[in-house]
Amino acid sequence: MLVYGKNVAREILNSEITIKKIYLLETFNNEEIKKLIQKRKIETTQTSQNEMSKMTTEPHQGIIIEIEDYKFLEFETIKNDKNANFIVVLDHIEDPRNFGAIIRTCECAGVDYIIIPNKGASEITASVVKTSSGALANMKIVQVSNLRNALNNLKKLEFWIIGTDANGEDYKKIDYKGKTALVIGSEGNGLKHIIKETCDIVASIPIKGKVNSLNASVAAGIMIYEVVKWR
Amino acid sequence: MLVYGKNVAREILNSEITIKKIYLLETFNNEEIKKLIQKRKIETTQTSQNEMSKMTTEPHQGIIIEIEDYKFLEFETIKNDKNANFIVVLDHIEDPRNFGAIIRTCECAGVDYIIIPNKGASEITASVVKTSSGALANMKIVQVSNLRNALNNLKKLEFWIIGTDANGEDYKKIDYKGKTALVIGSEGNGLKHIIKETCDIVASIPIKGKVNSLNASVAAGIMIYEVVKWR
Repeated sequence: MLVYGKNVAREILNSEITIKKIYLLETFNNEEIKKLIQKRKIETTQTSQNEMSKMTTEPHQGIIIEIEDYKFLEFETIKNDKNANFIVVLDHIEDPRNFGAIIRTCECAGVDYIIIPNKGASEITASVVKTSSGALANMKIVQVSNLRNALNNLKKLEFWIIGTDANGEDYKKIDYKGKTALVIGSEGNGLKHIIKETCDIVASIPIKGKVNSLNASVAAGIMIYEVVKWR
Repeated sequence: MLVYGKNVAREILNSEITIKKIYLLETFNNEEIKKLIQKRKIETTQTSQNEMSKMTTEPHQGIIIEIEDYKFLEFETIKNDKNANFIVVLDHIEDPRNFGAIIRTCECAGVDYIIIPNKGASEITASVVKTSSGALANMKIVQVSNLRNALNNLKKLEFWIIGTDANGEDYKKIDYKGKTALVIGSEGNGLKHIIKETCDIVASIPIKGKVNSLNASVAAGIMIYEVVKWR
């Protein structure tokens, strides 16, 4: 996977993400990034403007990094992990920046696994890598073909499935003591009907204003840290 | 102030932000946005590609909207508002998307005022308007020339000044009952030393992972909703 630009480069060089190759424009002269590359002892490939343009049409600012593709895990991994007790399920988060910020929050909060659908949601893009601020390298993400089946399988593993959406129970009044799977809805539509039905309970964050909804990654952060309090 | 593009247009047309003028490319054919414009009963100005290019170098997608400049309030307003008891102070948030998301959270949480510095921080840009998701229209923002003075003045008004940064008290163990001013640090550097010194207490959100910090708007959301619990 190729990622571009100075900001992403800085995040990746400071993270534990495996770097396969770094392409630098002959004239690339950002001293901070050059030092980070030296520190990681990675050889760079000098590349012409012309060659870079063939690699990507995105603004690359003279640096293109090839990183190892993120290796998603299978649901089996969760089945075999007896210590897993906090899972975040993303029901079609579309904005890569929200996805990245949620990965970062999950890593900070000690979430064991993130589960995402393999279609119709943000994939792991350069923007996700960047906004996750390196957390991606340390986060276990399971990709499934059917979210509802995954939730039902989590129930069999004795997880309590808590959806987050409007018109549910006050999130402060819920018991998060046991094995918890928190399901976060998409930016525009919240939880899909079929997913909401599958949840054991729906939690809501009270809203006082006129805007009527929080940013998806902010709402996820508030819910995730509410669960953390019970850990 | 000019803002551009379909996404921002949609947010603004659905919000209470005052629209002064809408410029549409002759060939603009987004039916959803056209319907929103009709609903708001706003006359549009048909504009050529050439004229639009003169108005902005940003990608405008055939729609440019002139909105009323945001009218910042003076600190005096807070002094005169006896009901104000929850204020969020932003110590140089730089990313417009974080600024916008925090405005949205504040509006949802019923925060009375946001205080920002008039230099060295994100201004109200199109990106802020968009990520605030219309909340900007309902949020009172006070701009000050000196954040430290503002905090000292809040103390005189009997506000308890709570900074949020690493290495402070566990945020869950703090009493947020009284008049509370929550100070949020910048993305890269957290709270400025001089600001941290002025706080009555510094609150920290516990971090378990290796990344070691939450996204600024997520951290703000977690803290803001912790205070809401005491309201």
